[in-house]
Amino acid sequence: MIGLQQQIKLVKRPVGTPVKEDFEFVQAPIGEPAEGEVLIRTIYISVDPYLRGRMNDVKSYIPPFELDSVITSGVIGQVVKSKSAKFAEKDVVTGSLGWQEYSVAKDSSIRKIDTNLAPASAYLSVLGMTGLTAYFGLLDIGQPKEGETVVVSGAAGAVGSVVGQIAKIKGARVVGIAGSDEKIKYLKNELGLDATVNYKTDDVKTALAEKCPDGIDVYYENVGGEIGDAVLPLLNKFARIPVCGAISAYNNEEADIGLRVQSYLIKTSSVMKGFTVGDYASRFKEGSQALAKWLQEGKLQYEETITDGFDQTIDAFLDLFKGANLGKAIVKVSELE
Amino acid sequence: MIGLQQQIKLVKRPVGTPVKEDFEFVQAPIGEPAEGEVLIRTIYISVDPYLRGRMNDVKSYIPPFELDSVITSGVIGQVVKSKSAKFAEKDVVTGSLGWQEYSVAKDSSIRKIDTNLAPASAYLSVLGMTGLTAYFGLLDIGQPKEGETVVVSGAAGAVGSVVGQIAKIKGARVVGIAGSDEKIKYLKNELGLDATVNYKTDDVKTALAEKCPDGIDVYYENVGGEIGDAVLPLLNKFARIPVCGAISAYNNEEADIGLRVQSYLIKTSSVMKGFTVGDYASRFKEGSQALAKWLQEGKLQYEETITDGFDQTIDAFLDLFKGANLGKAIVKVSELE
Repeated sequence: MIGLQQQIKLVKRPVGTPVKEDFEFVQAPIGEPAEGEVLIRTIYISVDPYLRGRMNDVKSYIPPFELDSVITSGVIGQVVKSKSAKFAEKDVVTGSLGWQEYSVAKDSSIRKIDTNLAPASAYLSVLGMTGLTAYFGLLDIGQPKEGETVVVSGAAGAVGSVVGQIAKIKGARVVGIAGSDEKIKYLKNELGLDATVNYKTDDVKTALAEKCPDGIDVYYENVGGEIGDAVLPLLNKFARIPVCGAISAYNNEEADIGLRVQSYLIKTSSVMKGFTVGDYASRFKEGSQALAKWLQEGKLQYEETITDGFDQTIDAFLDLFKGANLGKAIVKVSELE
Repeated sequence: MIGLQQQIKLVKRPVGTPVKEDFEFVQAPIGEPAEGEVLIRTIYISVDPYLRGRMNDVKSYIPPFELDSVITSGVIGQVVKSKSAKFAEKDVVTGSLGWQEYSVAKDSSIRKIDTNLAPASAYLSVLGMTGLTAYFGLLDIGQPKEGETVVVSGAAGAVGSVVGQIAKIKGARVVGIAGSDEKIKYLKNELGLDATVNYKTDDVKTALAEKCPDGIDVYYENVGGEIGDAVLPLLNKFARIPVCGAISAYNNEEADIGLRVQSYLIKTSSVMKGFTVGDYASRFKEGSQALAKWLQEGKLQYEETITDGFDQTIDAFLDLFKGANLGKAIVKVSELE
């Protein structure tokens, strides 16, 4: 395949909230697969809050993006040329690939997905890393028991919406926190959560206390900040807090100042555990199978905010920090054939 | 036994740092044991930072002290009259008893101690609740491995001094934080810690980074506040933080404001777990045996700050919040016979 394609590179490290000028569209030749490689046309690109962290030049759980390099994230694509016995043309695959229209990838770095089970985009949301993030954080760290109260922040987001539903499947009473009337409606009507808090219109401390009359046993943390603070005084004995995200702090230039947790954890013998989905890589198969089963049984809903067009990728990413998306934010780059 | 004795009651709930006026010495008759009870003469009283929490009228892991009631804590005493087949006169016993010269106790609420193994006071320190607090917090939550870096705050205190030594027994590199030259000398010369930070004279963030060139794998938290904050940026992947105490916050009247932990826990997949020794009640025997064995083998040192005289009990308690004591703070009320 000969020709040119568009790519998106990080050209400046964002200071505070990222802006368009931190990124650049560039033209580059479409690559040619060597032995054991395939050429993939990008269908869907996953845009995720955690990518903000990789734009800083600091030590974290994955290395930072390099300046003037193509950004990478979860991608669904279709094989257009294969030099691997493992893949044929038209196979639909997923992997961590570049923000570009075509990628050359080693066959060991991608895997086929089954589009009979669910639409391809679902493998970036409920059946992908976001679903697995919800699954392992909630079940391995949160360990909700029947009748317990589970609170989830970012409850209408990609991870949070799956967390709320798995907690319901496990028999917990689930309280979701989100930031718009539309999202609150979604949590109640579509996901069937037991109670909700709108952090933009409610006083979170008061509302949370009202909605959690028996205290909080599990708090799935996606946002941090004042919402995270409001949970602490309501923790029950032996509460569990999977710490998945802190989107409120990702664009902070200053230290993230708020309630210290020590006294609350001591009083209740509670645990807070940070994690990333990669910590559970050895158990992805178990998680994927459970999620697929619930999806087939109609127990899992999922919502996607799909933005059309590769040229909209940066906007779709920036929108994440405005709380604009319902469910998983995905960019559609081309049509599946 | 007929006669009068002194008792100490809590008469006001302290606001901020406790003061003498929050307590009152009162005279009361010495009790008379009923069937299944014993009369105990108080030998040693344990004064502990955690008692401050019980002086507030708030929900916590143990109920608050009631106003105008005798304060209780760990006590060593000697049986002067027994109406129980389980105890004889002169038996040396321990239990949670009142701040008073004599106590009547049910035989099920106390246990005999072996003064051949160690002096009686050791059962309030290294062989008592403080030793067990160090043991379970460090080994169950902290899980130090050979060659890892363990940081302990309040390192010259009752719990911290045992934590540092157990971490050394487990082959870790141990960095102790304390607040006086005398304590620093004790950590280096008596406990053999690998490095120390004096939080009153050093810049804690800078000093800690220097003393932990390989980062921090375990942080045993006794103090909270700015010292706890300084640890967060140095955590290694999969670090563990047993949260035992936050003495810096116990007298706070305002919310305890400082670094939010979420981002740090996510970046490193680290865990913070609050606990109290009571969480491990079913394993006390295991802990006591391990501590006694190390003590007999000469692997555990312990230090006590023993204040003489029941009338000094309140002062000894108030001194805890001045950082005055080295090792376990104990009040000696009468002589063992």
